[in-house]
Amino acid sequence: MAAKGRPPIYLDYNATAPVLPVVAERMQAALTGLPGNPSSPHRYGQSAKDVLEGARESLAALLGFNRREITFTSGGSEGNTMLLRWPGLAEEAAHIITSPIEHPSVLRTCEWLSGRGVEVSYLPVNGRGVVEVEAVTGLLRPETRIVSLMTANNETGVIQPVAELARLVRAHESGRRVLVHTDAVQAFGRIPLPLRDWDVDAVTLAAHKLGGPKGIGVVALRGNWPLPGLVLGGEQERGLRAGTESVFLVEGMLAAAEWAWPRLEEERRRLEGLRDRLAGQLEACGGFFLNGGEVRRLPNTANLGFAGVPAQSLLVAMDLAGVAVSTGSACQSGAVEPSHVLTAMGLPEERVGASLRISLGHGSSEADVDRCAAVMLAEVARLRRSASRYAS
Amino acid sequence: MAAKGRPPIYLDYNATAPVLPVVAERMQAALTGLPGNPSSPHRYGQSAKDVLEGARESLAALLGFNRREITFTSGGSEGNTMLLRWPGLAEEAAHIITSPIEHPSVLRTCEWLSGRGVEVSYLPVNGRGVVEVEAVTGLLRPETRIVSLMTANNETGVIQPVAELARLVRAHESGRRVLVHTDAVQAFGRIPLPLRDWDVDAVTLAAHKLGGPKGIGVVALRGNWPLPGLVLGGEQERGLRAGTESVFLVEGMLAAAEWAWPRLEEERRRLEGLRDRLAGQLEACGGFFLNGGEVRRLPNTANLGFAGVPAQSLLVAMDLAGVAVSTGSACQSGAVEPSHVLTAMGLPEERVGASLRISLGHGSSEADVDRCAAVMLAEVARLRRSASRYAS
Repeated sequence: MAAKGRPPIYLDYNATAPVLPVVAERMQAALTGLPGNPSSPHRYGQSAKDVLEGARESLAALLGFNRREITFTSGGSEGNTMLLRWPGLAEEAAHIITSPIEHPSVLRTCEWLSGRGVEVSYLPVNGRGVVEVEAVTGLLRPETRIVSLMTANNETGVIQPVAELARLVRAHESGRRVLVHTDAVQAFGRIPLPLRDWDVDAVTLAAHKLGGPKGIGVVALRGNWPLPGLVLGGEQERGLRAGTESVFLVEGMLAAAEWAWPRLEEERRRLEGLRDRLAGQLEACGGFFLNGGEVRRLPNTANLGFAGVPAQSLLVAMDLAGVAVSTGSACQSGAVEPSHVLTAMGLPEERVGASLRISLGHGSSEADVDRCAAVMLAEVARLRRSASRYAS
Repeated sequence: MAAKGRPPIYLDYNATAPVLPVVAERMQAALTGLPGNPSSPHRYGQSAKDVLEGARESLAALLGFNRREITFTSGGSEGNTMLLRWPGLAEEAAHIITSPIEHPSVLRTCEWLSGRGVEVSYLPVNGRGVVEVEAVTGLLRPETRIVSLMTANNETGVIQPVAELARLVRAHESGRRVLVHTDAVQAFGRIPLPLRDWDVDAVTLAAHKLGGPKGIGVVALRGNWPLPGLVLGGEQERGLRAGTESVFLVEGMLAAAEWAWPRLEEERRRLEGLRDRLAGQLEACGGFFLNGGEVRRLPNTANLGFAGVPAQSLLVAMDLAGVAVSTGSACQSGAVEPSHVLTAMGLPEERVGASLRISLGHGSSEADVDRCAAVMLAEVARLRRSASRYAS
């Protein structure tokens, strides 16, 4: 994996993050030290259960939820599928409102709902990447069951007006309470999440964008909703999510959250500084653009590019030069389709095809962004020279 | 957790197993050494993908499946739910055949199917714990979609005639192929699984009963079936199971399988020896019984008890004395309901309530079973004395 003797620089934290050392340590301790099944009544089981329930309580406290409102899942996609699919299993007519820039797990679940007779409305999104939540007042109906908007977009990092959306829903819902949900997978541990103040009913989280393990997440859900379990079986997680709980994964998620919470402000300043330092070094180059740069974004994310330089070519060139960045969301790669997020923002096709995502995290340093900028500028120049050679 | 200075003896491997040292090592290496998302096109992503696909190929080879037929899940309950629920989402009439001694994830999914208009038939089970698969010939109908029978029961360890069942289904299915499925979660790594010879279409596996991590499993599925994904989102696992793959968990599952496969015969002899040594020390005690003892069982499992001694009291007494065993399946505990497995076998209520499960594994030794036998005999005697005191 080494390029010129040193490992490639990793600037793709929104795809997934390297695990934090403190997370790996606590996971290893729980993996070997807690052999029991939390459902077993003997001491090995009860020790595992004590740690599981302690972690549930601690995470609930960080999130402003009650511990009984916390369900552990295998990650963000499972959480979103579980939360959003229930109107598709009900007998009555149902309607759901979301946005076109959601994660594929929300969009695919909405397609599934559509196929089962649930109507789906999409809020508009503007050119700066912000969902126009005022439109919700015209979309709400008596049969609206769920309104779902991500806390921050995975590709642009743009922070969405979830609190404003919840306020509008509350003011306009007709009698029956609408479930307001936010997918906060990218925001978790990166910005404050005052979910209680926002008046949302449900949030989806995952551990791995923050330096926790892949394979664990949380659904936090307040109130009584006819939510059926997605994974069926035993009575784990109050019957909402069957399967033997993986306590060492839960410990890893808690360790990541406990690392992040006291550092939110410090890491925000540090990562914004690094991100803006990077943009500062790039913006002198002709044709540079920044998507969503005018509005509030996650501190770690920059979606940017250079006019006329295909992102795919630039990504490959940078990878060969030892810098790992991304085009759009990793879940969509393999398929080289244009980003659904940037397309929904109304950006011209050429700009969509030239947009790269750089996302920083706990391991990122000044040296990393300086090297990224240097490599990027060199490769942009090289690609432009080579394009003009072929064009002439 | 220590009783009299030493840690309690763990004899509840069918609930879950302590992680094997080689598994913990390989997981730690993958956790810290493979930070990328397998869907990312850069080198970090591709390194993770290479290990993921290598593990898929290795597991497929051990199971006699093709690597494209292997889907990684979060465990056995997810696998069973995903495999069995599809007839409940189809428009057409459907029918499914299973047994009353299946894992709760199968039974709850069948209840869910029932609620959605799918008819469910249950094969009979005899008093020795064996499902009477000949009955399938009278139950098959043109609309039968799935026949599901576990490879070995989690409570009694009794090995079920899955190959015979598949043969009967093939001989009597009417034109359209019926999906023959086996839940092999308890059998995985404990007995040979010649799934190809058995002519089953699908198998559910999990890593953690064998000494792999909790939170990972496999569904292996041959042929073309209208199986929708359970967790929706990205195109991971050929679109069948969305969510960022957890490569270190996959490595842990593979490590456990690679530990077990070459040791199958050696461990079978060792564990059968220990189990029969234990039974030998107990059978002299009056009222001793062994459920399923007359038929082929998993080498590690004994379901047994003593007439008139409530299992719940014996379990608590043994736990206090430093030996961890189980009553029935851990997934059902919390609720102190009589075992659905032993009840389906037609055992008298008193015997069901007196039945304990002792299940051995990689860490079990002669000293463990000798201590277990000594503690058990002492506690049985004590409980009987105390019962007769209260009765007189």
